[in-house]
Amino acid sequence: MHSVFHPHVSDAPAQFLIPPHHMNISIIGASGYSGAELMKLLLRHPHAEIENVFAHSAAGKRVDEVYPAFRHRTDLVFQEYALDAVRSSDCIFIALPSGEAMRIVPELIDAGLRVIDLGGDFRLKDSVLYQKYYRHPHTAEHYLPGAVYGLPEWNRDAIAGAQLVANPGCYVTSALLPLLPLVKEGIIDPAGIIISSLSGISGAGRQSSVSYSFTETNESVKAYKAGVHQHTPEIETVLRAFSNTDASVTFVPHLIPITRGIYSSMYGRLAKQTDIAAIRALYDSYYASAPFIRVDEAKYPEIKHVQGTNYCDIGFALHEANNQLMVFSVIDNLLKGAAGQAVQNMNIMFGFAETEGLG
Amino acid sequence: MHSVFHPHVSDAPAQFLIPPHHMNISIIGASGYSGAELMKLLLRHPHAEIENVFAHSAAGKRVDEVYPAFRHRTDLVFQEYALDAVRSSDCIFIALPSGEAMRIVPELIDAGLRVIDLGGDFRLKDSVLYQKYYRHPHTAEHYLPGAVYGLPEWNRDAIAGAQLVANPGCYVTSALLPLLPLVKEGIIDPAGIIISSLSGISGAGRQSSVSYSFTETNESVKAYKAGVHQHTPEIETVLRAFSNTDASVTFVPHLIPITRGIYSSMYGRLAKQTDIAAIRALYDSYYASAPFIRVDEAKYPEIKHVQGTNYCDIGFALHEANNQLMVFSVIDNLLKGAAGQAVQNMNIMFGFAETEGLG
Amino acid sequence: MHSVFHPHVSDAPAQFLIPPHHMNISIIGASGYSGAELMKLLLRHPHAEIENVFAHSAAGKRVDEVYPAFRHRTDLVFQEYALDAVRSSDCIFIALPSGEAMRIVPELIDAGLRVIDLGGDFRLKDSVLYQKYYRHPHTAEHYLPGAVYGLPEWNRDAIAGAQLVANPGCYVTSALLPLLPLVKEGIIDPAGIIISSLSGISGAGRQSSVSYSFTETNESVKAYKAGVHQHTPEIETVLRAFSNTDASVTFVPHLIPITRGIYSSMYGRLAKQTDIAAIRALYDSYYASAPFIRVDEAKYPEIKHVQGTNYCDIGFALHEANNQLMVFSVIDNLLKGAAGQAVQNMNIMFGFAETEGLG
Amino acid sequence: MHSVFHPHVSDAPAQFLIPPHHMNISIIGASGYSGAELMKLLLRHPHAEIENVFAHSAAGKRVDEVYPAFRHRTDLVFQEYALDAVRSSDCIFIALPSGEAMRIVPELIDAGLRVIDLGGDFRLKDSVLYQKYYRHPHTAEHYLPGAVYGLPEWNRDAIAGAQLVANPGCYVTSALLPLLPLVKEGIIDPAGIIISSLSGISGAGRQSSVSYSFTETNESVKAYKAGVHQHTPEIETVLRAFSNTDASVTFVPHLIPITRGIYSSMYGRLAKQTDIAAIRALYDSYYASAPFIRVDEAKYPEIKHVQGTNYCDIGFALHEANNQLMVFSVIDNLLKGAAGQAVQNMNIMFGFAETEGLG
Repeated sequence: MHSVFHPHVSDAPAQFLIPPHHMNISIIGASGYSGAELMKLLLRHPHAEIENVFAHSAAGKRVDEVYPAFRHRTDLVFQEYALDAVRSSDCIFIALPSGEAMRIVPELIDAGLRVIDLGGDFRLKDSVLYQKYYRHPHTAEHYLPGAVYGLPEWNRDAIAGAQLVANPGCYVTSALLPLLPLVKEGIIDPAGIIISSLSGISGAGRQSSVSYSFTETNESVKAYKAGVHQHTPEIETVLRAFSNTDASVTFVPHLIPITRGIYSSMYGRLAKQTDIAAIRALYDSYYASAPFIRVDEAKYPEIKHVQGTNYCDIGFALHEANNQLMVFSVIDNLLKGAAGQAVQNMNIMFGFAETEGLG
Repeated sequence: MHSVFHPHVSDAPAQFLIPPHHMNISIIGASGYSGAELMKLLLRHPHAEIENVFAHSAAGKRVDEVYPAFRHRTDLVFQEYALDAVRSSDCIFIALPSGEAMRIVPELIDAGLRVIDLGGDFRLKDSVLYQKYYRHPHTAEHYLPGAVYGLPEWNRDAIAGAQLVANPGCYVTSALLPLLPLVKEGIIDPAGIIISSLSGISGAGRQSSVSYSFTETNESVKAYKAGVHQHTPEIETVLRAFSNTDASVTFVPHLIPITRGIYSSMYGRLAKQTDIAAIRALYDSYYASAPFIRVDEAKYPEIKHVQGTNYCDIGFALHEANNQLMVFSVIDNLLKGAAGQAVQNMNIMFGFAETEGLG
Repeated sequence: MHSVFHPHVSDAPAQFLIPPHHMNISIIGASGYSGAELMKLLLRHPHAEIENVFAHSAAGKRVDEVYPAFRHRTDLVFQEYALDAVRSSDCIFIALPSGEAMRIVPELIDAGLRVIDLGGDFRLKDSVLYQKYYRHPHTAEHYLPGAVYGLPEWNRDAIAGAQLVANPGCYVTSALLPLLPLVKEGIIDPAGIIISSLSGISGAGRQSSVSYSFTETNESVKAYKAGVHQHTPEIETVLRAFSNTDASVTFVPHLIPITRGIYSSMYGRLAKQTDIAAIRALYDSYYASAPFIRVDEAKYPEIKHVQGTNYCDIGFALHEANNQLMVFSVIDNLLKGAAGQAVQNMNIMFGFAETEGLG
Repeated sequence: MHSVFHPHVSDAPAQFLIPPHHMNISIIGASGYSGAELMKLLLRHPHAEIENVFAHSAAGKRVDEVYPAFRHRTDLVFQEYALDAVRSSDCIFIALPSGEAMRIVPELIDAGLRVIDLGGDFRLKDSVLYQKYYRHPHTAEHYLPGAVYGLPEWNRDAIAGAQLVANPGCYVTSALLPLLPLVKEGIIDPAGIIISSLSGISGAGRQSSVSYSFTETNESVKAYKAGVHQHTPEIETVLRAFSNTDASVTFVPHLIPITRGIYSSMYGRLAKQTDIAAIRALYDSYYASAPFIRVDEAKYPEIKHVQGTNYCDIGFALHEANNQLMVFSVIDNLLKGAAGQAVQNMNIMFGFAETEGLG
């Protein structure tokens, strides 16, 4: 097992636990969709003050010029990133493409700053695995062991004391939250779990590409990177670490013509006799006090129920003839799958209510 | 095994094989989406003449009043169905909801007429299974053994001589075409195959229901009838009949916000060592001469490639770490999944080129 | 001129101006889309407490059963309306279809309660005009003179003291906000203004109708009620009242395949020489302190900039060759076009900051 | 008046009128959406044989590699354009961006070839006007006078004998067909006609641009180039030429989230007393024998009725209070607005039935 996730150990200095009244926030890579969602959430957050928004391609432009939805809401201007500009920030969010965060994180950590990285650079502990799936070498391996995986429902204590939080992938969040209790408690066979996921096009980021144009994607669906998507090792690594099994998954993402949202349909072979009520009780035992997880065995989840929110809705059904458990989950890929979960992590790191600014 | 599909036996009278120069066609249940597609196809078909279009709810209305897209194309008027009106028809299509065709088919068959039923009433041979999934008893059991399953790529000879063709379900078509060669040749384990399918909203028919309104379905996805959809026994029955295995599937349909199209993602455990090239060769051996099947292992299928056509596109990939084969297929649910396949069957029944009117 | 809108006179008792710390709220007709938006806004509003939600068709059901998006957010249960249940409410919202509010409003007003009606029953002062466009007689004419038109940017003082506020129509809001300054200041000819508006399908309400099904509306557009839509007299009446002109409009609504949002494109003949800068200055003089109006002559408004918000964005351009002013506006039909504006009115009526709960 | 459209004069050599049994076709710029539609139509056309498809960016690739929808339909390969390759072509279609056709047309015309240009380079007779709206100089002015405007319903005879046909713009087609009879017969004031048009995103072409990505365009609408779109002078020039008036229009295009289709809503002041029946009779007198024009005063046109077809549907209504005529039209922008109309023109040029291959 690769993972060294350690929920109970925290090297974080004690002062991390004292929440400043108004926290200064910097966002690096603020002009993409996750960055824009972060700004939207943090502008409303009662304890946050956005100090800097960095975006190389948009440097010098007002935020509301790039995103007119922000008119009347902020006078912030995108800047070029510089270490000196963030030294006064209590919390730094990074929303950069893979490969770019690892060039900046070291100097931030060395400067004693607290960082939440929304990208994939610090989610895997194994740099060989990273290179295999992300197709470039990891250049900040030294910082991997200290990164804390930011799945609050499973790693709350470690997150609270973390200096560097690796915010989970969007597909990964939608898969781990429903699967972890089932795998950990031996309800389903940890081997060969099928994860068939559907994502809205915003998941591809703010790209100029024929492939993501309206005309090419509307009224269509396509699978992509079947079995080779970079979220596969992340799902497996975390599933193994938190369940103490040797879980393996076949993960297939599909693009569907919606803007926001992920629908994951998961299929596992039952490893023991069970029934709907028992599975519901199991979920309750794990998630009854998790504010953003809603389990309902009586209704299939629907993406529209979570759009614009930080919820993960979970449903499930048994196919007894085939001894299969079918599990369904939905999240908003830009919120619980990215910016919302990042703010949830920030709340935990700084001692605020977990739901603060996310209601 | 329930099935009595009999590809080599035909009780059809000899004159069935003589194609009339212009065939008279009747459509019963013509005002739904499948009926409208049938009209569109048959108005363009070089050997067909639509004689009657029956629709109880629209009786007395011109077709182009209900569907203005037909203005300038036809003067047909929807009528109430009457047996006498169809005696001169060479081929009768039925596009009624389940439970209604079985009230009409007996008198049509007894009158010596040839029938293609697009609904589910004559697809299963087992009336107990029918009642379990369709939730009402079968009232024309006597006619079940004579019905020929209308999947042309697997049952061409029987279709050619059939008096009553049961046109396959939309999801079923999308699943059977890619799975049958794999199961029959022992490539994948016939047990526990996962079929995760996505359908456009037209699959729900022309319904006045809040559930299928734009506002409720747009920007959303939901699974439904997981494991209990009526296409489950149809997939299993036909899969078993044509592959001589005891195949079982877990089938989950999902509604996605597109108008037309089905995307099926299928997951099977490899039953023998194989590779991409061998699977491609296998498909070619079955489908090289099938005009409407396009296999491409290099590109994922996309719904937009088949919209408005009778094609079924198939793609696949291996997930070797998990010993899984992932198979993907797309069809237009109203064409290869309904009206297009019905016309393909008519072409076969009456000796026309299989692609006539479907190009 | 029909109107008796009276911005400076208020018969409201003095105690209306004392805001209760936590206001009790009732919503009558809470199970439609506007009702659901009201619940969403008021559950987040710092000074509101929802006391009752009434919905005949859903009576007895939990709100989160009808709208699973509300799980974890509220335990409210839809009830049958009864006058006694609302006597303790500080503010009562009505979100019923036209013709139903006028059966309830009289008893509410007579009981001294303050009411905001989101429907059309109290927007027109002229019951003959009402009957002509709404196709049924008005049965509460006596209460029409006292109703205050709830367009905050033009009627703030009257709203503050009102007992009964008639919340404007969605299309109407999108048209009046950009047109009023232009007509009042004589920039454009008040006669023959063209208003070509596009609305998302949620504007049709939560209906089970083939016409609003996904399959019928997706990938399509249709105009409807051209020149005869019931918002035509509302636009004209209010435009005349607030501009002191005899304005007339040709208003054509269109349904487009989006869930939420209205785009109005308006065309007026210039009545005096002007230029872009002067028009911008004019808008600033009216709206510089209006928190929800954003004017930008440099960028065309886009629906996505206002979705989920209470903003009205306005843009404009001159076509000098034809002496025409082209004006464009966007709103979220369920917020600034319905529930958002209603809460804005409530804030004004009860002395809260106009933006409270709408940020 | 700029125009020199001359419906009755043709310099075309006599042999133009003799239709070859199978015509050889070349398409220059075949890899865009209009090019792809041309291929789809011509592959089905009973008298056409596609000889060459040219596309610089895709040269060397099979058509079905770029557009997998063409698998099983053609083995054509995109090539680099060369004059020698097209000398044997009976008809050459050009589907290039503005500014590129004018670099190729001269050598084609000089070689005696017959050309249909789907772009804007030869639609305006006035090169100054061209430069003003297209933002680059015209480099083939000498060939402008000979170009015949390809609106079949108004210029059939000239098209029949033309060597160079300028296929109309998409918005232009949707506006001219309904407006021309009204303006020519003095029903509406030719000055100040309002044209408010909505287009699907495919109208922007096959572009890699954030602006046309699904995430930026879905659930939104935006006007663009209000009053300054390059189709404005085309509408005015042709309207004037064919109606003998000094017509002027204010034209505003909007992008809406559909793939294909244009909806144009037009507003004109009545110039004489009239009624619905008289206008209907007027349209019939012009279009009763036009196979692709369908007029219906009783139903508003809808884009879905014409999608995938070459029809233009027209509806209208009177707003008597304001003395306005409201006219509505719909086309498929890629068919009647581009490739379909081009094939209609080819049919006329080569003596085939006007509807051949377009049914």
